[in-house]
Amino acid sequence: MKTDPGRFFEDYRVGEVIRHAVPRTVSGGERALYHALYPARGAIHSSDEFARACGLPAAPVDDLAAFHLVFGKTVPDISLNAVANLGYAEGRWLAPVWPGDTLRAESEVIGLRQNSNGRSGVVWVRTRGLNQRGEAVLEYVRWVMVRKSDLDAAAPVPVVPELAGAVAAADLVVPGGLDFTGYDFALAGEPHRWGDYAVGEVIDHVDGATVEEAEHMLATRLWQNTAKVHFDATFREDGRRLIYGGHVISMARALSFNGLANAQMIVALNGGAHANPCFAGDTIRAWSEVLDKAATAAPGVGAIRLRLVATKGAAGDTAGALRGADGKYLPGVLLDLDYWALMPL
Amino acid sequence: MKTDPGRFFEDYRVGEVIRHAVPRTVSGGERALYHALYPARGAIHSSDEFARACGLPAAPVDDLAAFHLVFGKTVPDISLNAVANLGYAEGRWLAPVWPGDTLRAESEVIGLRQNSNGRSGVVWVRTRGLNQRGEAVLEYVRWVMVRKSDLDAAAPVPVVPELAGAVAAADLVVPGGLDFTGYDFALAGEPHRWGDYAVGEVIDHVDGATVEEAEHMLATRLWQNTAKVHFDATFREDGRRLIYGGHVISMARALSFNGLANAQMIVALNGGAHANPCFAGDTIRAWSEVLDKAATAAPGVGAIRLRLVATKGAAGDTAGALRGADGKYLPGVLLDLDYWALMPL
Amino acid sequence: MKTDPGRFFEDYRVGEVIRHAVPRTVSGGERALYHALYPARGAIHSSDEFARACGLPAAPVDDLAAFHLVFGKTVPDISLNAVANLGYAEGRWLAPVWPGDTLRAESEVIGLRQNSNGRSGVVWVRTRGLNQRGEAVLEYVRWVMVRKSDLDAAAPVPVVPELAGAVAAADLVVPGGLDFTGYDFALAGEPHRWGDYAVGEVIDHVDGATVEEAEHMLATRLWQNTAKVHFDATFREDGRRLIYGGHVISMARALSFNGLANAQMIVALNGGAHANPCFAGDTIRAWSEVLDKAATAAPGVGAIRLRLVATKGAAGDTAGALRGADGKYLPGVLLDLDYWALMPL
Repeated sequence: MKTDPGRFFEDYRVGEVIRHAVPRTVSGGERALYHALYPARGAIHSSDEFARACGLPAAPVDDLAAFHLVFGKTVPDISLNAVANLGYAEGRWLAPVWPGDTLRAESEVIGLRQNSNGRSGVVWVRTRGLNQRGEAVLEYVRWVMVRKSDLDAAAPVPVVPELAGAVAAADLVVPGGLDFTGYDFALAGEPHRWGDYAVGEVIDHVDGATVEEAEHMLATRLWQNTAKVHFDATFREDGRRLIYGGHVISMARALSFNGLANAQMIVALNGGAHANPCFAGDTIRAWSEVLDKAATAAPGVGAIRLRLVATKGAAGDTAGALRGADGKYLPGVLLDLDYWALMPL
Repeated sequence: MKTDPGRFFEDYRVGEVIRHAVPRTVSGGERALYHALYPARGAIHSSDEFARACGLPAAPVDDLAAFHLVFGKTVPDISLNAVANLGYAEGRWLAPVWPGDTLRAESEVIGLRQNSNGRSGVVWVRTRGLNQRGEAVLEYVRWVMVRKSDLDAAAPVPVVPELAGAVAAADLVVPGGLDFTGYDFALAGEPHRWGDYAVGEVIDHVDGATVEEAEHMLATRLWQNTAKVHFDATFREDGRRLIYGGHVISMARALSFNGLANAQMIVALNGGAHANPCFAGDTIRAWSEVLDKAATAAPGVGAIRLRLVATKGAAGDTAGALRGADGKYLPGVLLDLDYWALMPL
Repeated sequence: MKTDPGRFFEDYRVGEVIRHAVPRTVSGGERALYHALYPARGAIHSSDEFARACGLPAAPVDDLAAFHLVFGKTVPDISLNAVANLGYAEGRWLAPVWPGDTLRAESEVIGLRQNSNGRSGVVWVRTRGLNQRGEAVLEYVRWVMVRKSDLDAAAPVPVVPELAGAVAAADLVVPGGLDFTGYDFALAGEPHRWGDYAVGEVIDHVDGATVEEAEHMLATRLWQNTAKVHFDATFREDGRRLIYGGHVISMARALSFNGLANAQMIVALNGGAHANPCFAGDTIRAWSEVLDKAATAAPGVGAIRLRLVATKGAAGDTAGALRGADGKYLPGVLLDLDYWALMPL
């Protein structure tokens, strides 16, 4: 058989490294599409001039675009037969991606645990995105539940990796040369600096975006993500296409400009859950909570740890509401993401 | 509060200059998207080679793309709380925008007049788009009706600017180096030259384009226009998203290629009205009327003043029909735009 | 009349050469859009680095993107009044198209035959796409049935060109420098090499893509294809927009990555039929049949001749089913395309 059925749970071995296809060169085209698909307005990613004023050689590719590109490459090898995307941890952006760079990806299997039902298991991988010089541009751990194909295959010795609850501030990598001492708050869109945010503060980002089938498919294809459920309306019994969770991440992050315009660059992904599925016609909204703050060694640059929550539905006073009395995510919650960003002091 | 509620009528002062966020670098990505979103076929904007044969260093970014980029930046500061977009005047394109350029924008408040109801007022601004060298690439006056937030705020002394009914031909700025003496009409798509058009002539552009939600949102986001009503289906009671008027302008202008293929570059915006709202599912058509003609100092280059009217509905012999017996725009009219373009003699 | 009604059957003369408008410069923007519109993953077109490892200076523009760009230019002159697109033959890609290249097109009328009903006729043209150096980048023969406008116009002397059933392997043009001896199968996405495919083998490409109005219009406009029926929902009595056949070609070709990841570059189009119309909401699937194999003079490079069939509907075991007992295409068949591609030995 020439087509790729994807890997099943019994096909993974702890310690193996999977080199993913297909390498991809990015250009101004990806940047323009990112800005058409999401209301992204972060000044460093929008303007070469603004980026230069902050010590960078040019505007880098959006951090989440780099993430989606790397993630997409892993889908055929990691999650084609996944039942669920369970979590992220220890994600770090290690170097900016510039137009003209070529990205590839590889994943190391770092954990395996068969489920008690014997029909599936959890696979943990540490994925790294690499540029054309072999430098890692980002890395993250993801774990997914994957079906078994051969139910008689022996269960592997369980290996469950110990993962940090959050990336330590000391481990954040600030892009070389970044300097916020001359930061232009008016051009960036908001006056709020690092010192203006308090741990525990909740920000309702106000704006909403109703999503369309054409948009999420354009986005997901752009990242060469091949998961069938995003594209094929005949795949699910209800005839709906499930929206790639990364589309919700990028939409929510872009909406969070309104209140967090100066949370300029994402440098770590501490964790994340796709709480409920998103479908075309849903109106995505977002709120954020400040979880932590830290200094960095870069001039004028602070780090801020944020919980980004995407919800669906009409506007309302629901910012801050995350879980019900039963401890489960509320039905309108789509995403609960925990990340570190850099902000001018 | 960290989010931006936008300015209200009482927040403006005549003479103040507002620097708008966020600067934006354009590339071939924006050009490709513009050509995917609109049936744009103007040869100078489509082909570096054609542009060079006309004395330019390369194909500039589409004139209306530059306009939308600048306009989009003004939305958070000027029209987030606007009730209506009332008009444009004295618009001029002052220098081409090239891939790689970074645009920013600033607006001077040039007029204020509170409405007699005390609940809103009209704000006039003169907006300028600037490139990375600080050179103005375009300017225009726009006036909008903006709500008051504090109804007790005192009414300002009324200042109503005197605006030209049209940009005088002598004030048109022809891009440096532009030379149409070797113009290739076959490659451009039509044989009609400046001398072939008569003042009063009406051209039915024949073609129609049915618009989709995904398209107008991609376009409007690409220009970083943040007006909620274009994106959030829960915002209006009828659950529809209002299409950005600039989407209609670009669609109609692109449709006008059929009959005006050689009206190559827009150099002035004399005025414009968004006569009726446009929604997804509408089929946009266009007709033009030649309003005036003028010589320019550039070799082989004439100027033509055109009324561009966008309508919705099925094809029919309605070219030239604009207003009813009551003087109001006909219900099928979406746009009434008055501009100057450059055309080979 | 300033607008172009298009040519009718009586307007063509055997031997005339039509220079088509509008030249077009391509960039990374077109590449990014192609990857957003189709699940294209061919490594040579995705990655500059992979292309360099195969002896090319950079990743070329996707072969079918170049085809659509050239095809689109011919529409206003060849098929605006076409009743049917009847076939393709003798198509060859002659040189890669690189970002920055400017394409134009010209067509020679090589055949004419009026239909017996006297109301229409068949027009054969040989179209060539040319870059800014005047080098042909591709050529193909297409024939279409075109309406007569003046039914009294005399029928031309019938000229029916003799066309090859397939491009001979000896006539395939391999891009200069192409060398697959160091081909990285892991990065390319599949291990199957030229020797692994057998003539007669049928491959079910498994994946499906449900198409949306916004997507096919974005694509078709990107190629500056002006056929009204793709854009104007009021044009057909049933209110549907017919999807450009080239959209189905590119979708099917991209879906065929799953099983033919190493069929890297298209070098010939032997023939093709748009068997049934495609509309938004259809889910496109694809299967391929290996028709022939041939050696080439380039190091490590083999040629493979493939039938690519696009179908619509839910997944099922229909790979290989093409025609009914009556010899007609099955109702679910959208496309039957015959092409040569290059594959590592």
